[in-house]
Formats: sequence, structure tokens, C-alpha cells
Amino acid sequence: MTRNTPEKTTEKTPVTLLGLGAMGTALARAWLAAGHPLTVWNRTPARAGALAAEGARTAATAAEAVAANRLVVVCLLDDASVEETLAGVDLTGRDLVNLTTGTPEQARTRAAWARARGARYLDGGIMAVPPMVGVPEAGGYVFYSGDRELFERHREALAVPVGTTYVGEDAGFAALHDVALLSAMYGMFAGAAHAFALIRREDIDPVSFAPLLADWLVAMAPSVHRTADQLRSGDYTEGVVSHLAMQVAGTPTFLATAEGQGVSAELLSPYFALMRRRLAEGDGAEDLTGVVDLLAR
Amino acid sequence: MTRNTPEKTTEKTPVTLLGLGAMGTALARAWLAAGHPLTVWNRTPARAGALAAEGARTAATAAEAVAANRLVVVCLLDDASVEETLAGVDLTGRDLVNLTTGTPEQARTRAAWARARGARYLDGGIMAVPPMVGVPEAGGYVFYSGDRELFERHREALAVPVGTTYVGEDAGFAALHDVALLSAMYGMFAGAAHAFALIRREDIDPVSFAPLLADWLVAMAPSVHRTADQLRSGDYTEGVVSHLAMQVAGTPTFLATAEGQGVSAELLSPYFALMRRRLAEGDGAEDLTGVVDLLAR
Ligand SMILES: NC(=O)c1ccc[n+]([C@@H]2O[C@H](COP(=O)([O-])OP(=O)(O)OC[C@H]3O[C@@H](n4cnc5c(N)ncnc54)[C@H](OP(=O)(O)O)[C@@H]3O)[C@@H](O)[C@H]2O)c1
Ligand SMILES: NC(=O)c1ccc[n+]([C@@H]2O[C@H](COP(=O)([O-])OP(=O)(O)OC[C@H]3O[C@@H](n4cnc5c(N)ncnc54)[C@H](OP(=O)(O)O)[C@@H]3O)[C@@H](O)[C@H]2O)c1
Repeated sequence: MTRNTPEKTTEKTPVTLLGLGAMGTALARAWLAAGHPLTVWNRTPARAGALAAEGARTAATAAEAVAANRLVVVCLLDDASVEETLAGVDLTGRDLVNLTTGTPEQARTRAAWARARGARYLDGGIMAVPPMVGVPEAGGYVFYSGDRELFERHREALAVPVGTTYVGEDAGFAALHDVALLSAMYGMFAGAAHAFALIRREDIDPVSFAPLLADWLVAMAPSVHRTADQLRSGDYTEGVVSHLAMQVAGTPTFLATAEGQGVSAELLSPYFALMRRRLAEGDGAEDLTGVVDLLAR
Repeated sequence: MTRNTPEKTTEKTPVTLLGLGAMGTALARAWLAAGHPLTVWNRTPARAGALAAEGARTAATAAEAVAANRLVVVCLLDDASVEETLAGVDLTGRDLVNLTTGTPEQARTRAAWARARGARYLDGGIMAVPPMVGVPEAGGYVFYSGDRELFERHREALAVPVGTTYVGEDAGFAALHDVALLSAMYGMFAGAAHAFALIRREDIDPVSFAPLLADWLVAMAPSVHRTADQLRSGDYTEGVVSHLAMQVAGTPTFLATAEGQGVSAELLSPYFALMRRRLAEGDGAEDLTGVVDLLAR
């Protein structure tokens, strides 16, 4: 089958990118590959060399890079490095997109700071690692929050390296979503570490065990939908499958097994303690959702 | 299309089932539905009534139920109730399958106890809740360990209510797998509880947040394969994506975000503490796998 499609010659948004660490470099390559004019700057200039050979314009200073394009993406180590890098740089009329990881509070402060300098501000939290950038099948994306018009205007350019998920006008929401998801992931990792520790002393191959563990976690992850429904309705008995009293009754088996396998229960005990506290204060017919109430003060 | 298939008249293995709680009742219904002759007993006889109407034979005592069939399945509250129920019952020549939740130690003790009474013993850990029993699409299964011949002989009957996964001759392995997977799940639940607590004070709908959380956990769960590879090889830098030093450097953002949202970090801190301890003792280029070493003493 042959087809003559006229080459699509849409003007690609020019992008300025500050920061060429592991993540910045991956972002830069994705924009270059998609044909976006790209101006880059990095504190240590050597890192810009390879990208220049691939078609990027390199700027001698952050100020020069910012002056080059309206869309300015920042991907530096932390909030302090953003402040330092942009101190004294004229941001008037810029669309500043900050992909540097930080707290919601830092994002909100940075948004006000940018607006005071005449820039529009969008914050981003990257849910991907560098090898996933420019690989749509990898499923990475960036949470965006802050100026909605900025997001809409640059949506296409922003979607080039990884997918985009806009989560609200509050500049802190991207960071909050980012931190919330990664916190949950660390909980899962902690649970998995405990599981691997339990089988450690036995003649059980961790590589044969891993698929069982992965499948189980994948099967149980959707239970967060039930938790969400219960949090919204306020009825923590809604759709309960294994009620709190039964689950608390089961905890000695988990602790005794850890003990028997010579494994510290320090990663499990705090959650069990909150389950017990909730049971002592409330209704054994509930799900585990009451633990959320005990955490948020 | 019409086809004359002669009715398959394979003899279905008769089953004795002790314990008609939520789980036992679900198991009983699945065997009855599949046409297995079923003899049931429950401490509180009333619970057997409905099943009798559905075709089960009811036994007046546990001893009578055990005498009825070679394959005897036990699904009681805990190990103590199994001991109590079978005390003084003649188990000679029985194939005893214990689906009661317990520790690996209890399973091993129960196996020796059963053998001393002339029975073969198979232990099981049920990875399902009652609504998943008899519903193959639900993906529930039972970990089995102990007597392999017993398992092979009754494989078909055992596979009727939920799938089967045999994990070794050591009678304790089913319980160990069961506890390990559920422990990991509680870690994931703890992480999810922290995530929901973080968004609690904000104008973020938990029901819109849940799919993001579920998808992220599902996407991250397969990382346990990398952990397993590293545990097997002993090289914790193998295939590392985000190394320990970088992840430890990120922890203040997580703790500050929790603090800023008024959320206790008690469910996250223990894992972060172990990450820091491993970094202090070792190699920042490693993955998070060294935490397993710190748990297993
Ligand atoms: N890598 C990941 O897996 C990943 C995933 C999600 C989010 N992120 C986030 O993306 C951001 C960048 O990460 P990365 O992996 O690219 O980090 P990285 O490889 O460590 O690079 C850090 C970058 O920040 C620059 N920098 C540090 N301090 C600076 C300062 N005071 N002034 C100016 N520039 C400074 C570095 O410049 P020099 O070259 O001069 O040192 C470098 O360009 C971080 O906020 C990170 O949390 C990363
Ligand atoms: N339900 C689940 O989601 C689930 C999931 C996985 C595994 N399991 C495991 O399956 C087993 C049964 O759970 P279940 O949900 O059916 O529990 P359940 O609804 O609470 O039923 C408990 C059963 O144990 C009997 N029992 C308790 N103490 C006894 C004693 N001293 N002597 C004789 N019988 C006694 C009860 O008899 P009475 O009727 O006379 O009280 C009842 O038949 C447990 O080990 C549980 O951990 C359950």
C-alpha cells in the first residue's frame, strides 16, 4: 500500500531547558528527536556538548537561555538550585515550567515568586525515570498543576517526552500527587522487603517467588478504589470484604511468622498498631480505611 | 452445531469438610456445585442446615465426618481450634488437608502430629476471600505444601473451589508464602493509607485520585523481579534504576510533605530509616535491596 501524505509542517514550539542531569538530558533528546528547536543550559557546560552535536543551541548563561524562548523548562536538582539559577534572571513574559522535584509548599512559593517576576508558572512532578522518557509505551507521565492556560498552550510540546496529567490550578498539587504516589510505592517496597526477608532463610528461590508476589500486589492494588469510595462516603463499612476485627485477629500470625523466620517486624508493626488503635476506638465491621483518619491529624 | 457428547461420568472424589464459617461455606458450595459428594461438620450445627438442603451430608460429630471419607479438608478459625476439633479423632489412613490460617511453625507441628496419627498431611494457605471461591475468573488460589503424593492424588478435587499452587514438601511453606504475600500487601495498604492521608486536607477527590494510585502501584509492582534477581546474584547494583544515594536524598521531600499536610510519617519513617542505615553502611550505587539484609537477622 502506498500513500502520498504531504509532510506535516506544523511549527514546533521552541523550548528552553535548564538542567542537563540524567533527567534533563533525556528530556532534551526527546524534544530534539521530535524536531523542537531547543536551547539548553547547564551549570557544568560540558554536559551540553553532546546535545549541541545533536542539534541543540547552547546558551552561555541561564539568562541567555531564558531570553531565547517563551517556554522555559527547568529540571534541576532541587528547589534551592532553581532559586539560585534564576536569581536575577529576567522572567518577564516567560512560561516557566518547573519539573524539579519538591514539596507542595515549595511549588506554591515558587509559583508566587515567578508571578511576582512577571512569569506564568506551571509545576510538574515526573512519574518516570530517564529510560522511560521518549518511550510512550513505557507509560511515564508528568503531573502538572498551576497555570491552566500555560498548560493548554504548551500541551503538545509538554507531551513530547512523556504523557501529561493536569491535576489542578493549585501549583502544589503536582508535587502532592507525585509525593503521594511515591510514598505509597515506598510502602509497597517496604512490604516486599519484609516478604523477601521472610523467605530468606529457607530453600525458596526469590526469582520463583517474585512472580507470585508481583501478581498478588497487582491483584490487591485495585482495593484502593474501595478505600476511596469509603473516604468519600464516610462509611468505612461500605463494600467491606475482610473486616477490621478479623484482620486485627490475624496480626499475631504475621508477627509470629516474622519472629519464627528471624525477621524484624519493624516495617509491619506500625500499620498493625494503627489497625489495633482504630479497632479499640471504633467499629470492628469497618474496613482498614479508618487508619487514614489516624494519620491525618 | 449439534454434537452428542456422552455425559462424562468420572467418579468425583468424596470430600469431608470440617468448618462452615464464611470460607468453609464457600468451599462447600463450590464442591457441591461441581458434583462432589460432600460430608460436612460444624461446631455450631445450625450452619450446616442450608448446605444439607443443597445436597451435603451432615455429620453429627467431627469423628463421624472424618470417618466418612479419605479426603478430609479442615477450615477452622485457627490452629488451636484444629487441635481441639481433631483431638481423639481417628485419623488413620486419612488425607488431611488443613486450610486453616497459621504460621509455618504451626503447620510443621500439625504435619508431624498428623503423621503420628497415621494420616498424610497437606497444608494450605488461601489467597482468596469467600466471594472469589467458585469463581475461576477471580484468580484466587491456595498455596499448598507438604505431602506431594496427597496433593497429586487429590489435585482435581482441590482445584474445584480455587486454583492450586504447590510450593514444596516442607509443610510450612504454604503458610510462609501466604504470610509473605499478605505482609507485602499490608505494606502496600500502609503506603496507600499515607497517600490518601496526604490529599485529605485538599480539594482532591479520593475517587479521582484512586485510579492514579492503583495504576502507579501496578506499574511499580514488577520491580520485585529486579529485587529477586539482585538477591539471587548478591549484586544489589544489578540493573539499578534509581540508586540508594539518590533515593535517600529524596526522603526529606517526603517527610516535609507529610509534615506540611499534617500527616504523621509513622508508616514511612521506618523504611526510610533502613534506607539511610544501608547507605551509611554501604554503597550508594545499590538499589533498595540491602534493606532486606537489615531485616533478616
Ligand atoms: N532521575 C530520575 O529518575 C528522576 C525521576 C523523577 C524526577 N526526577 C527529578 O528531576 C530533577 C533532576 O534529576 P536528575 O536525575 O536529572 O538529577 P542529576 O542527574 O543529579 O542532575 C542534577 C542537575 O541539577 C543541576 N544542579 C544541581 N545543583 C545546581 C545548582 N546549585 N545550580 C545549578 N544547577 C544545579 C546539575 O548541574 P551540574 O551538571 O552542573 O551538576 C544537573 O544538571 C530532580 O529534581 C529529580 O528529583 C528525577
Ligand atoms: N474469610 C476470609 O476472607 C479468609 C481468607 C483466607 C483465609 N481464611 C482462613 O480460613 C479459615 C476460616 O475462616 P472463616 O472466614 O471461615 O472464619 P469464620 O467465618 O470466623 O469461621 C470460623 C470457623 O471456625 C469454627 N471454630 C472456631 N473455633 C472453633 C473451635 N474451638 N472448635 C471448632 N470449631 C471452631 C467456627 O465454628 P462455629 O460456627 O461453631 O463458630 C467456624 O466454622 C481461617 O483460618 C481464616 O484465616 C479466611
